[in-house]
Amino acid sequence: MRITIIGSGNVATHLAAAFKNAGHAIVQVYSRDLQNASLLAYHVRAEAIDNLDQINPETDLFAIAIKDDAIEAVASVLAKHEKLIVHTSGATDLQPLLNHTKKAGVFYPLQTFSKTKEVNFNTVPLCIEGADAQITSTLNELAYTITQNVYRINSAERKTLHLAAVFACNFPNYLYYLSQQLLAEHQLPFDLLRPLILETAEKVQAHLPADVQTGPAIRNDEKTIAVHLQQLQEKPELQALYKLLSQGIIKMDNRS
Amino acid sequence: MRITIIGSGNVATHLAAAFKNAGHAIVQVYSRDLQNASLLAYHVRAEAIDNLDQINPETDLFAIAIKDDAIEAVASVLAKHEKLIVHTSGATDLQPLLNHTKKAGVFYPLQTFSKTKEVNFNTVPLCIEGADAQITSTLNELAYTITQNVYRINSAERKTLHLAAVFACNFPNYLYYLSQQLLAEHQLPFDLLRPLILETAEKVQAHLPADVQTGPAIRNDEKTIAVHLQQLQEKPELQALYKLLSQGIIKMDNRS
Repeated sequence: MRITIIGSGNVATHLAAAFKNAGHAIVQVYSRDLQNASLLAYHVRAEAIDNLDQINPETDLFAIAIKDDAIEAVASVLAKHEKLIVHTSGATDLQPLLNHTKKAGVFYPLQTFSKTKEVNFNTVPLCIEGADAQITSTLNELAYTITQNVYRINSAERKTLHLAAVFACNFPNYLYYLSQQLLAEHQLPFDLLRPLILETAEKVQAHLPADVQTGPAIRNDEKTIAVHLQQLQEKPELQALYKLLSQGIIKMDNRS
Repeated sequence: MRITIIGSGNVATHLAAAFKNAGHAIVQVYSRDLQNASLLAYHVRAEAIDNLDQINPETDLFAIAIKDDAIEAVASVLAKHEKLIVHTSGATDLQPLLNHTKKAGVFYPLQTFSKTKEVNFNTVPLCIEGADAQITSTLNELAYTITQNVYRINSAERKTLHLAAVFACNFPNYLYYLSQQLLAEHQLPFDLLRPLILETAEKVQAHLPADVQTGPAIRNDEKTIAVHLQQLQEKPELQALYKLLSQGIIKMDNRS
């Protein structure tokens, strides 16, 4: 396919590279910042533009990977070219695109991307939604050129997924941060915990989290919990968090 | 070394196997449950016993891997053999052993072990503490026979480490569970989130968590946070957790 990338951030960068590697042609890369557009365009052998007036209409797909708030405004400008437009946002309905074109879809890669780390796109779940059956089929085919994990997810499901991803990714990373800060206070290196963090994530690749829960709370080990709360006495926020999470873990058995 | 394993749980099992693989001789495996003792003893070609009276004194080291509450009582019985005794507990001081023998130490593997999953011991951090310099040196040498990551950690530091490990392992696993439950309510498979969970843990192997934090809270994206809290309206416990974690993330910049 001939694909135009709108955006130059993390998602745009990883998606453009994955498309290029799969043999698709990247026509243009648009960013408000021409330098950012040029950097990405250079990597995927595309033209860099910083003005939507310069859009080359000879494309099959506009893939919008910009801030959620800006998606609809950009789509309203692109709609006149009457080509397929998808956004890549987990938090955004299909509707903002549908307000301007019938040729609309969503192409949401469920992964955390950073510029410093390469991602093997082959295992990234791609959640697709099309405005009609034909668009869904086109996006399905496109998705399978870059990953083995393609899911048809409607806007309501995507909303749940986006929330769940915060619990699965953003919040655990914050807990890693807290553990690192606890160690740093005592001049202990974070390397002590890195293998534990990795093993914890690897365990749930083949098991359900409820089946591999460990620690004082799941054992209802009140003595250890009391010692830990005592250690956090001068950190009321961490203490509150420790209590809330431990109470939840203690109740796990009943809920699952 | 000639090593006697006291216990037959997850830590005892993985530690005994690692010692055996490194060429040490496992003399005996003790468990109150003879069947459990026999199962592990068979794997490491040792004698199984279920009574401390049957201890063979021809050993160099007693490695105690049983419930924290039972460590001191068992150590008081083993002390008469005048051999080196270590416990393997992150939550326990050296003192309960010192109450009964001068030949005391700690040999704490900082990892989450489950019976269903093999662990590459080579990368597991081993935290050692000896009652004197010679014991520390002996434990240091022993530790390096089974892992590349050996740390000398005193009892006060180990207490911090044990608390930090709850934040780095037990609590993230509970958040995985919550994300899985959110998906399950909408018949969405947990496989959607597994690659995200793994990538999040892999990211902090080379980076500090503060440098790779993503999500609505770190962007102070109030609109998305409000939508998520709305979605959790009928789950007051998750809503409270979401608020507490997001407030913490929003403050990260100032704290680090």
